[in-house]
Amino acid sequence: MAQPRCRSVLITGCSRGIGLGLVRGLAAADPSPEVVFATCRYPDKAQELQQLSKQYSNIKLLQLDVVCENSIKKVVKEVEEIVGDKGLNCLINNAGINVLASLEDVTAETMLTIYETNTVAQLMVTKAFLPLLRKAAQLSTGMGCHRAAIINMSSLAASMQLVQANEMFLKVYPYRIAKTALNMITRCLAADLKSDGILCISLHPGWVQTDMGGNMAPLQVQEAIPGILSVLDRLGEKENGSFLDWQGETLPW
Amino acid sequence: MAQPRCRSVLITGCSRGIGLGLVRGLAAADPSPEVVFATCRYPDKAQELQQLSKQYSNIKLLQLDVVCENSIKKVVKEVEEIVGDKGLNCLINNAGINVLASLEDVTAETMLTIYETNTVAQLMVTKAFLPLLRKAAQLSTGMGCHRAAIINMSSLAASMQLVQANEMFLKVYPYRIAKTALNMITRCLAADLKSDGILCISLHPGWVQTDMGGNMAPLQVQEAIPGILSVLDRLGEKENGSFLDWQGETLPW
Repeated sequence: MAQPRCRSVLITGCSRGIGLGLVRGLAAADPSPEVVFATCRYPDKAQELQQLSKQYSNIKLLQLDVVCENSIKKVVKEVEEIVGDKGLNCLINNAGINVLASLEDVTAETMLTIYETNTVAQLMVTKAFLPLLRKAAQLSTGMGCHRAAIINMSSLAASMQLVQANEMFLKVYPYRIAKTALNMITRCLAADLKSDGILCISLHPGWVQTDMGGNMAPLQVQEAIPGILSVLDRLGEKENGSFLDWQGETLPW
Repeated sequence: MAQPRCRSVLITGCSRGIGLGLVRGLAAADPSPEVVFATCRYPDKAQELQQLSKQYSNIKLLQLDVVCENSIKKVVKEVEEIVGDKGLNCLINNAGINVLASLEDVTAETMLTIYETNTVAQLMVTKAFLPLLRKAAQLSTGMGCHRAAIINMSSLAASMQLVQANEMFLKVYPYRIAKTALNMITRCLAADLKSDGILCISLHPGWVQTDMGGNMAPLQVQEAIPGILSVLDRLGEKENGSFLDWQGETLPW
């Protein structure tokens, strides 16, 4: 990220896809953050992420299961020991899951599981990192990733306004409903944390060819990442509480 | 409701508040539906509703716990036995719960409980009644409560656009986030069921002095109900997938 510099970033769900791409992009950026906390559920199995963390000294690989309260507590402690009084500048809530479920297929169980992982976990991880985000916010002025920011990875499929235009997403009821709820979390956090100098946005990272995005997706990870990083770089007070895509365009709720 | 007539309505959460008010308003309307299925979790304890059902012969009191799969199955069967091939014209998903929970207080458990009751249950109840709604839709034309309609009781607090203007609702994180998710269900159902001739909207019933709305609420139940019934009466294709308040005004997502 460009000046003023973002000292520390934490990303959830980094074993593959967009999370992994973000770690790579941030670690290789010039200037790059002093530390990129790359978290995932099973670090032992995340071979690409392991290799990347050997390649770049500013990547710190940590275990985090976002739906586990104890795992969240542990990772906050580990991060605190490293960043100390400087706090955490940027939290990217990227971890998420998906299942195919149309109106016909959708069950209460799937709705709850997806909500827990794609919505509730983001709020709980954010709450746990608030003390560190507040510390970072106290050391700077303005708003943005150089100070303190929460980035919620949302989806174009979450836009209520665009449901008619995106009927292909009707096959992912639990996912898109949970992501809409996540957008509301963004709005509430943006209002609640503004006085602390902490920014919050929802970001549609592009429909990307990943395990989640599938083969139909029009974008490669390596195409979307520079766009996302550029959007994060330019965030300011004006963008607080907004829903942006990877090219910086505002999406309707 | 006025002509063309709505033959049958089912309302969830009728033991008190807006649900009870709707039952009273519909039963007393001229013309009134042939049958108003008034459901609640504990009919034995719902004394006002019991009295009302003795007063009006078109009220049919049924037990329904919206988070219980078997209870949903049972009530669908009971309704089917009464309406037969005429199906169900209007389903009003009114049941809901609330807890006070600010950013500081909110827990994963509360988020999941409120989502289950205020969001997932609405989708599951709707799915279960789809065959009966489709039957009713086949017997009529146009769109609206005279044919087949799903009314999701939402809230002004669910509007993402209006979060800044309604910061007092920041003390009900789980509720407002779940209601935003319910609005997305409305959007998905409106798109999915349009070809079946089934309309779906979200409705903000007004901030009403009920057990849920509290004493601060500016409206009495008896003020809001005529407005709500008039809105339901006027619904047509133009309103499919919209978010209306009790006076018929469109709210922003």
